Amino acid sequence: MRLRNKPWALEFINEHPDVIISNPEEYKGNWKAVFGNENPVHIEVGTGKGQFVLGMAKQNPHINYIGIELFDSVIVCALERIIEGEKPSNLRLLKVNGDKLQQYFAKGDVARVYLNFSDPWPKTRHAKRRLTHEGFLKLYESVLIDNGEIHFKTDNRGLFEYSLMSMNAYGMSLNYVSLDLHANMPEDNIMTEYEQKFSAKGQPIYRLESQFKTK
Amino acid sequence: MRLRNKPWALEFINEHPDVIISNPEEYKGNWKAVFGNENPVHIEVGTGKGQFVLGMAKQNPHINYIGIELFDSVIVCALERIIEGEKPSNLRLLKVNGDKLQQYFAKGDVARVYLNFSDPWPKTRHAKRRLTHEGFLKLYESVLIDNGEIHFKTDNRGLFEYSLMSMNAYGMSLNYVSLDLHANMPEDNIMTEYEQKFSAKGQPIYRLESQFKTK
Repeated sequence: MRLRNKPWALEFINEHPDVIISNPEEYKGNWKAVFGNENPVHIEVGTGKGQFVLGMAKQNPHINYIGIELFDSVIVCALERIIEGEKPSNLRLLKVNGDKLQQYFAKGDVARVYLNFSDPWPKTRHAKRRLTHEGFLKLYESVLIDNGEIHFKTDNRGLFEYSLMSMNAYGMSLNYVSLDLHANMPEDNIMTEYEQKFSAKGQPIYRLESQFKTK
Repeated sequence: MRLRNKPWALEFINEHPDVIISNPEEYKGNWKAVFGNENPVHIEVGTGKGQFVLGMAKQNPHINYIGIELFDSVIVCALERIIEGEKPSNLRLLKVNGDKLQQYFAKGDVARVYLNFSDPWPKTRHAKRRLTHEGFLKLYESVLIDNGEIHFKTDNRGLFEYSLMSMNAYGMSLNYVSLDLHANMPEDNIMTEYEQKFSAKGQPIYRLESQFKTK
């Protein structure tokens, strides 16, 4: 699937408001109106082509999933995949910027945040852009339930090292750390596109689960 | 060097009280009497054959080092190495059990604890024996200065994962984490015997620096 030059992308997106929510501001504090139930909502920030969030939605029908992706040319791939996957009723996409979460979610709207193979932004001067920077942790905390969790996977060693230190410095609990996820693959692991690619090359996949503490 | 069947080991140890302190209880709270100065004291718990602590003592003459090792057959190798290395005046050995630190050190006697390639004790029922278990962290804290540090290296993935979680749960700061130390080798890194062996096989070496917080 080509990621550039998709003049039809926006049109295709607009034709599927049942998958890509067009008016997310209106559901702030009221996501049960979208899903028709009060099941917990898990979001993936930077959902890419959607393989992970679609797999999770099918695996866990009693959780509601929202994949967040800014770029038309990428989210359109996730949309196609979800249509092919028969549009699980517990899955939606948002075409918005991850740093604007507070516009769409009230405190307690989200039970868990997934971050998968996020951009490592390796230069120190770009540290603030990393999705595990203190600024983003604060943002996630502001929309999560009390004791809400972050589940994070990456192949990028530098980003994982940074994230361990950043979450520790923020006062989060590190409840689970794996430095080679595929060495003891959990049965319920859903692979992302990047995960398939990098693990096939023999690179270790790092994974952690962290949790905000009640203050 | 053979590690078993050394009937001469104890005799050799007893001949060198200038290196292996024979009466460490007497210096509790007063280690400056041993070293003749008030420089900070760094200890290595489980010093093995002594390559690390000897290298550190030579590299950092303004730090006092104490290598702690329980086994005659092992500490005798460290002793031989130190004698061959001209017995730096800022280095001593203690032939005692690491879990008895409080018998030899008062609160504040120690500025830093080094743990290198400690026994991983992989079985869950042996977790209490791991040198980064909560019980040991409490012990180190009881002899360290305020904001004292632990510097830890290992090739064992399971032990490193556990240690990150254990130190985080204890409320320590993770100030430095490397998941492949030799990929960006620090210039002042002193290798242990195990580190040379495992890194030669291409296995990653994990390293962290953690710090106790003032309560």
